Amino acid sequence: MSAERTTYRAAGVDVEAADRVKARMGPAIRSTFGPRVLTDVGPLGSFGGMFSLAGLDVPEPVLVGSADGVGTKLKLAFLLGRHDTIGRDLVNHCLNDVLTTGARPLFFMDYFATGALRPEVTLAVVEGIAAACREAGCALLGGETAQMPGFYAADEYDLAGFMVGLVARGQLLGPARVRAGDVAVCLPASGLHTNGYSLARRVLRLDGQPGAARRRLDAWVPELERTLGDELLEPHRSYLAELTPLLPRLHALAHITGGGLLDNVPRALPADLAVRLDRRRWFEPPIFALLRREGDLAEAEMDRAFNRGVGMLALLAPEDADALTRLIPDATVVGEVVARDGGSPVRIER
Amino acid sequence: MSAERTTYRAAGVDVEAADRVKARMGPAIRSTFGPRVLTDVGPLGSFGGMFSLAGLDVPEPVLVGSADGVGTKLKLAFLLGRHDTIGRDLVNHCLNDVLTTGARPLFFMDYFATGALRPEVTLAVVEGIAAACREAGCALLGGETAQMPGFYAADEYDLAGFMVGLVARGQLLGPARVRAGDVAVCLPASGLHTNGYSLARRVLRLDGQPGAARRRLDAWVPELERTLGDELLEPHRSYLAELTPLLPRLHALAHITGGGLLDNVPRALPADLAVRLDRRRWFEPPIFALLRREGDLAEAEMDRAFNRGVGMLALLAPEDADALTRLIPDATVVGEVVARDGGSPVRIER
Repeated sequence: MSAERTTYRAAGVDVEAADRVKARMGPAIRSTFGPRVLTDVGPLGSFGGMFSLAGLDVPEPVLVGSADGVGTKLKLAFLLGRHDTIGRDLVNHCLNDVLTTGARPLFFMDYFATGALRPEVTLAVVEGIAAACREAGCALLGGETAQMPGFYAADEYDLAGFMVGLVARGQLLGPARVRAGDVAVCLPASGLHTNGYSLARRVLRLDGQPGAARRRLDAWVPELERTLGDELLEPHRSYLAELTPLLPRLHALAHITGGGLLDNVPRALPADLAVRLDRRRWFEPPIFALLRREGDLAEAEMDRAFNRGVGMLALLAPEDADALTRLIPDATVVGEVVARDGGSPVRIER
Repeated sequence: MSAERTTYRAAGVDVEAADRVKARMGPAIRSTFGPRVLTDVGPLGSFGGMFSLAGLDVPEPVLVGSADGVGTKLKLAFLLGRHDTIGRDLVNHCLNDVLTTGARPLFFMDYFATGALRPEVTLAVVEGIAAACREAGCALLGGETAQMPGFYAADEYDLAGFMVGLVARGQLLGPARVRAGDVAVCLPASGLHTNGYSLARRVLRLDGQPGAARRRLDAWVPELERTLGDELLEPHRSYLAELTPLLPRLHALAHITGGGLLDNVPRALPADLAVRLDRRRWFEPPIFALLRREGDLAEAEMDRAFNRGVGMLALLAPEDADALTRLIPDATVVGEVVARDGGSPVRIER
């Protein structure tokens, strides 16, 4: 009999520590629960979270599901040791995806996987998720906290999220509603949101030695009027609260994520229509000029990797554009829907 | 102007390769779609998958959500270069979690994150997910394929899954239905399922040099009557098809995952009841004896890390046990529900 027997803990998985951190998550998670979360039959710790649809007065209800991650923006959270905002990125990314269909969010679930469970970090991430859920009126119905030693570095983690929303079939937004002559309205991004970070980190030389990267992130950048770290960690903006009162007037929404305007705007268009955008009509935040300059990036690369300042593009009838720009002061009309005529579905003019 | 401008692709993200592999996933994904998946308004490529609940005749419907990963079982898929079964592990893990509430699955979404996109590997994983979804009558409604260079090794990936099921509130299974005198029925596991792999890999020295690990995995193991690799990669068993006709007779189900019998059985019990299990009454597959011996593992460690051969524990009235064991030939009565009397909620006797 060996003096030191193998244990699960020695193999890198601490079940008791996981139980303790899950217990500490409880208040944040419960703070997101509305009356539809069944806590009597499905308390925290049940195998599945339960959300009642009883009495919902929605004709032909449609569930809308979206799965997302936050990509290598996580590396910046690691470098800066700031873990309280990345959960908001994850939730807001999902909120915007679900919102493009006209659905309102019902619940969210997260997957958090790490090399070694650090309770304070795990808690900060989940509390960030819960805060964003609470603000959106979306229940944090459950999640998975996975300890995967040797898979993730001890001080790293990945994060994925899954949201379910609900919309009446007759109120679905999307390509079928879009008409030639519709206007395109830019809802400004708060920054890079959650896309293009692998390129940004390369360009800004943040993917090498951590000490040097941290010094760069902490430095004040005059053209950004903040530190590079603050700029790059700025959370993904949610358009839920602002757009909700306007949903009946919208035709389609394009959430500008991976692939930029070129890949995402077509997802909101029928095959026979295109969008013509005038780049001079929206404000491109200075971080994009900085990235272009530092990386000597071609325009086409910029367009594929980054949102260029457009967080969401709304398509709607011209007579409704005023209502939108009145309610959302930083929104601006930036283009229009035209016949496609065989060309590209997205034409960006300057 | 530099001769080699930075590109997104050079930074490790190939948007076009991702588009190509997503297009190749299409047939497998569509093969899971039933009539409730709205492909006209929400085609592949929309920001959210859409699932209609119209005309569902379920009184007081409750949605059940579950998020899961497959842990470091992935490392075995990597070592063996076999990527077509791990998706089944992920889906079946979720199916069993959702099933514990009595819900039937509606849809599933996946998160697949990798260091460098290898189309054949990505496709094999997603096709495995789709096959398991198809068999369960569960739509693969969407997913996220994330390229995260420098975050994951080029030849590694992580995988998370999210499932939504539906059940009438009056048909919810769970602790509230369980009574003293109920019997506990073991539904055998097909192997380790998706838990305890960090410990198993340590014990079996599979966490070191890949060449040596591969030789160990490829070797025939007489007591297992198969190779170690086949044993360890055996997919997580789904109990959905077998248990569905019996759901009206069941009181509660405990899915034996991380934390083993000791942590999971209490999730199916009210506070005043306990389960007494007789270990001689179920068959513990030989992999567990092998792990105990090789790692000189204490019984308490075995119980925390592994399912010990119990994939699912069903609690139901004694008069219904016959129906269950007749329908599921390898199921066996292994214990009973008793008053807790202040002791442990799970008492394993031998």
